[in-house]
Amino acid sequence: MQKSELARRTAALQEKMGQLGLDGVLAAQNMSMYYLSGTMQCQYVYVPAAGESFGLVRKNLARAEAEAGIPVVPINGFSDMGAAIAARGTPRRLGVEMDVLPAEIFFRLQKVFPQSELLNATPAIREVRQVKSAYELEQFCLAAQQVDTLYRQIPQLLEIGKEEVVFAAECEAVLRSLGHQGISRMRRFNSEMYYGHILSGATGAEASFVESPTGGRGLSPVAPYGAGHKRFAANEPITVDYAGIYGGYVLDQTRLYSFGRLPSLLARAFEAALEVQETVKQLLLPGITGGEIYAAAAAVAQKLGFAGHFMGVGRTQAPYVGHGVGLEFDELPVLGKNSPHQLTVDTVVAVEPKFIFPGLGMVGLENTWHITASGPVKLSLTADEHVIL
Amino acid sequence: MQKSELARRTAALQEKMGQLGLDGVLAAQNMSMYYLSGTMQCQYVYVPAAGESFGLVRKNLARAEAEAGIPVVPINGFSDMGAAIAARGTPRRLGVEMDVLPAEIFFRLQKVFPQSELLNATPAIREVRQVKSAYELEQFCLAAQQVDTLYRQIPQLLEIGKEEVVFAAECEAVLRSLGHQGISRMRRFNSEMYYGHILSGATGAEASFVESPTGGRGLSPVAPYGAGHKRFAANEPITVDYAGIYGGYVLDQTRLYSFGRLPSLLARAFEAALEVQETVKQLLLPGITGGEIYAAAAAVAQKLGFAGHFMGVGRTQAPYVGHGVGLEFDELPVLGKNSPHQLTVDTVVAVEPKFIFPGLGMVGLENTWHITASGPVKLSLTADEHVIL
Repeated sequence: MQKSELARRTAALQEKMGQLGLDGVLAAQNMSMYYLSGTMQCQYVYVPAAGESFGLVRKNLARAEAEAGIPVVPINGFSDMGAAIAARGTPRRLGVEMDVLPAEIFFRLQKVFPQSELLNATPAIREVRQVKSAYELEQFCLAAQQVDTLYRQIPQLLEIGKEEVVFAAECEAVLRSLGHQGISRMRRFNSEMYYGHILSGATGAEASFVESPTGGRGLSPVAPYGAGHKRFAANEPITVDYAGIYGGYVLDQTRLYSFGRLPSLLARAFEAALEVQETVKQLLLPGITGGEIYAAAAAVAQKLGFAGHFMGVGRTQAPYVGHGVGLEFDELPVLGKNSPHQLTVDTVVAVEPKFIFPGLGMVGLENTWHITASGPVKLSLTADEHVIL
Repeated sequence: MQKSELARRTAALQEKMGQLGLDGVLAAQNMSMYYLSGTMQCQYVYVPAAGESFGLVRKNLARAEAEAGIPVVPINGFSDMGAAIAARGTPRRLGVEMDVLPAEIFFRLQKVFPQSELLNATPAIREVRQVKSAYELEQFCLAAQQVDTLYRQIPQLLEIGKEEVVFAAECEAVLRSLGHQGISRMRRFNSEMYYGHILSGATGAEASFVESPTGGRGLSPVAPYGAGHKRFAANEPITVDYAGIYGGYVLDQTRLYSFGRLPSLLARAFEAALEVQETVKQLLLPGITGGEIYAAAAAVAQKLGFAGHFMGVGRTQAPYVGHGVGLEFDELPVLGKNSPHQLTVDTVVAVEPKFIFPGLGMVGLENTWHITASGPVKLSLTADEHVIL
């Protein structure tokens, strides 16, 4: 990665550190470290309040040196790490990622830095990561091409009687051959996902533990989301919510298919999803909060008579209509109930109006948008239409 | 899952809790909760020192009730959870999973349980999970069949000139169609893996940040392990380290292939790997420590002149020759340098003697073994041989 790109990211974080009075940030989570260094080979990345950041490498130093756009130093453990940082000035107020750092490591860091106060740097890191660079936007565009290539093949891959998971395997092989990294990354504790959710009929309405409007039956209670053993049938909604991932960046999109027509209730709900999307699209401007967008989206659902189905049903309702994407699926801002997060220029969000009907399934769609000063640019390339086979 | 299975697991944990003087354990990590409840739909699972454990469910209560083999109660947040537990007696000494629980959640739990001392329950949970039941052993056997079905097709799927990642996509589609859950779970902070590592020639010797003898180039610095864009060539080692996963349980195995003969150095190293495996196999008995096994394995590597290549080179050497497997790839015991973890009856371990030659690649193999009182039972079904195409 270009040094100028990393310098911009570091400077943006240092500006926020100044506002928070942090003397240093010790990034420890894989994607935070990659974002700040250009490599995943570091054990920690240290960002001082001013001056150059550096990586601390426990294992493959040569690879870290080759990949990183910042200096790297070898360490063998906690005390080495503490010494390397102390040599550049002990941080009185040290920021760490409280939402992901295991408690055990937190307490070891307290021992390594006995004179430091450990504070939460997560909001600062997430806010910096929210604003995408030209380099990052290009990765999204390449991810959009990757996933569009899959979606163009979907009508040929879908068959009545085929198991969801067999179709999923075919879709995954297409994406993988196009350079998809395979794994999907989420920051939130205990969150996990595979490529996304391929659901059909009633499985589209089965909520799971994942923080998402859909879950699905999955394969078993230990893989309780996404494609399962259900076979595709006529006149039921089949939804493909598979992201493209290129250079680590997630282009999240969902499309609706069916063999023959859907029950009119579901067809009307899909029209409602398009209307929600249109309303949200008008609002995707810098300065608006996620909460304002969610309220407007929920109002459209209410007006059209689908409030009780919007993003889920009852206590399994997901309290959002969209979310930031980037190196992870759950970046800022959340377009959720009362969410204070503001859109900025160069925020990238996935907007996914979906309606859930227990026993019948899910209809809706999802697109990924780049926020500019003059409005949103749709990054997804695949046509929005419900494809009837 | 059968209630008797869960009752056995809970009783085993309660016995360890008694030894540690814990009044309760609040499990919070997905696989710990699944292990103790039979479902992934809980937000927490509470195990009291005596009596019935129960799940605390934030989202899909009906699904949790249907899947769980223990009672479940709905909660809407931290205070509900605290109240539900306090109603059954406030734990003075409360065990939590310090190695995985985010610091932020740890400190919120301290507020929810102001009269409790939070202690580390991770070793107790991991030690209980180390000992597999008949039900769990059956899942390993089904995973062994799944992955053997793939390995039987590998000679047909391998082609000179094919990219690692294209071959990987084909292997993944085979496994997925056989019901593989797709994701691979690891407990360790920041650990991640896809299906495993498919490597060829020099990529087999490229170490990455992952705690493993192999890493690989991968697709990019943000996906820096496993298959990449290198194309298969003649006379180089091609290794497939892809696990079967059935019912959540991991059957880890590695096999060696080549088009034509390998350089004699590598062929001899593969023979050495077989000899290390044979030595380790003789030692796989209840009571031995991981450290004793590692020392014996390293001694064979030394005797055969490959000490400098065993499980890696220099600072990228992985300090172990095997590891426990179960719902995660990194269970107890570690068969590693000075590891105090003892094998028990019904421990399941993957043993993976591997030799790394920078610029040339990796040779070795991996099998998964069930420890019984009379010795190890090999769970992997695929023949050990180096397959020359």
